[in-house]
Amino acid sequence: MATIKAYGAQSETADIAPLSIERREPRPDDVAIRIDYCGICHTDIHFARNDWGRTVYPVVPGHEIVGTVTAVGDGVTAFEPGDRVGVGCLVDSCRECSACDEGLEQYCDNGFTATYNGEDRHDGSVTFGGYSEAIVVSERFVLRMPEGLDAAASAPLLCAGITTYSPLVEFGVGSGDRVAVVGMGGLGHMGVKFARALGAEVTLFTRSESKREEALRQGAHKVVISTDDGQMEAVADRFDYILDTVPVQHDLNPYLDALKRDGTLILVGLLEPIEPPLDAGAVVFRRRRVAGSLIGGLPETQEMLDFCARHDILCDIEMLDIRNINEAYERMQRSDVRYRFVIDMNTLRR
Amino acid sequence: MATIKAYGAQSETADIAPLSIERREPRPDDVAIRIDYCGICHTDIHFARNDWGRTVYPVVPGHEIVGTVTAVGDGVTAFEPGDRVGVGCLVDSCRECSACDEGLEQYCDNGFTATYNGEDRHDGSVTFGGYSEAIVVSERFVLRMPEGLDAAASAPLLCAGITTYSPLVEFGVGSGDRVAVVGMGGLGHMGVKFARALGAEVTLFTRSESKREEALRQGAHKVVISTDDGQMEAVADRFDYILDTVPVQHDLNPYLDALKRDGTLILVGLLEPIEPPLDAGAVVFRRRRVAGSLIGGLPETQEMLDFCARHDILCDIEMLDIRNINEAYERMQRSDVRYRFVIDMNTLRR
Repeated sequence: MATIKAYGAQSETADIAPLSIERREPRPDDVAIRIDYCGICHTDIHFARNDWGRTVYPVVPGHEIVGTVTAVGDGVTAFEPGDRVGVGCLVDSCRECSACDEGLEQYCDNGFTATYNGEDRHDGSVTFGGYSEAIVVSERFVLRMPEGLDAAASAPLLCAGITTYSPLVEFGVGSGDRVAVVGMGGLGHMGVKFARALGAEVTLFTRSESKREEALRQGAHKVVISTDDGQMEAVADRFDYILDTVPVQHDLNPYLDALKRDGTLILVGLLEPIEPPLDAGAVVFRRRRVAGSLIGGLPETQEMLDFCARHDILCDIEMLDIRNINEAYERMQRSDVRYRFVIDMNTLRR
Repeated sequence: MATIKAYGAQSETADIAPLSIERREPRPDDVAIRIDYCGICHTDIHFARNDWGRTVYPVVPGHEIVGTVTAVGDGVTAFEPGDRVGVGCLVDSCRECSACDEGLEQYCDNGFTATYNGEDRHDGSVTFGGYSEAIVVSERFVLRMPEGLDAAASAPLLCAGITTYSPLVEFGVGSGDRVAVVGMGGLGHMGVKFARALGAEVTLFTRSESKREEALRQGAHKVVISTDDGQMEAVADRFDYILDTVPVQHDLNPYLDALKRDGTLILVGLLEPIEPPLDAGAVVFRRRRVAGSLIGGLPETQEMLDFCARHDILCDIEMLDIRNINEAYERMQRSDVRYRFVIDMNTLRR
């Protein structure tokens, strides 16, 4: 066991603060990783503050991890010390169910092991995430970071990236499709980039006229102000796919109406009951679909990273000294970040 | 123009009663049909009573029509007098949009012409449905009734049949799939028969233990009592497809939970806002889909009729003298019919 430095929350009212955690010695299939960068996801805040009522304290958040291999177990074949690697939202799964067999570990029938606040399948310990100097992860759950991808700006690809890439690919977005993205935060701006790179005609739905220029810069062809009834009517029955990244309750019906016959509204942010209620008539009369998607499996995450390298896709980030993390949390809650904070983990080692 | 006998409602509070209506002389593409049988759909009641606020009176309901060709226009090539034919929910569409091009006239971008209470695209008159001696319909919207299909028991195939057949086929139900049907009325019992004939393992969800034997007789392999929490838990994550035929608001979440990862809940009855609200988490965490489907297009309706002939599929019906139609409406509202009333239209001619 190694004792290392980390940042985490000791209770739901505590700030994120320094603490010490233990990391296991590498098992035969493990990769030991020095963490270089870690993105901050909204989920981190939810866990730190126990918004979902299931946080085990202390919690060390962070599941957008880029680092460098420092050691490997005897059985590891794919990685060696010095390799640049990534770790996302999952560090283990049952590896036996049909989902795991298909490389869809995020849908593991027996529940995946989350990178933090999960329960280790071997020793029952609580997992600690990326706000720390180092992490030890089973080879299957380690990603190879392609050469040429900026290490810091690729960290959020491990969550925000794969969460938007996976549904676009799985639901079949391709050249010529009309795709709209709802919301332009960490997920939304990645959705715009991926949809564009996949050959789609891309529209951003936003409530704020102020995001127009920025959305066009990100690759959107068009911007529709979702609070403007005239603009919404003008796009009725228009889109093959709408990727909705908004994580709070909102009215989905205007987006449903903007779908073509056979179009699909894909939820990747919302986890609450759908209120105001969805209009079943708008689903039935145009054979529309409402679907959801959760992060992505390991093979597809690797595929996404390689896609990003080929298409020069990165997350837009603001680099952070870990000592300023509480201020970053506050700014995130005001949506005051374009578009993801990434912690420079060297600031933890200093 | 020909003046013929019909039954219809003169106002939302009036009983269904005899009246006279005009039918046009056949246009070059028209088929004139003597109506032999007409099924009664719940939609008929909704229109008679103006439940949806858009009934034009007098209304002559009926869109599950089986009859015999009596005359054809000069341009008609597919039918001749004496042919047994069917007419369903649509008697026209724009014939120019992409939906019509694909034979999906029910999703016509310019709105299909409903068999009753629709507006004729040529003369602007209000269409009258099947509670009448005869009807005149453009060739494209006339179905050929396969030989060997009982004429009366096949009438409801034109609405209840195609409404359940189309989504099962379109969403890809096949051999070995696990399909559940919610509700066993006119639509539900057809859904059970079609899913079974398509090779699926079929489960019926019902609130009523009394329907068990009957569901098994219809072809269901299993019956799950949806009000029994233990039975519902036992089928969590089980089904590839659930066909929900219930036309009134009900909680969809227990059915969502019964879907596998990537499973699809297909709504064909519900047209209201979905309340209680759908749980987005249950959609996202298992990549499930909620979809809808509306009747079917003309080519697929013909395909369905031919499928029924090959597989000996008919609707279970109770034959009705048209003079008893108001009693039939009352019984339908108590769900006291197995499973569709079909009017013997000879009782109108007597």
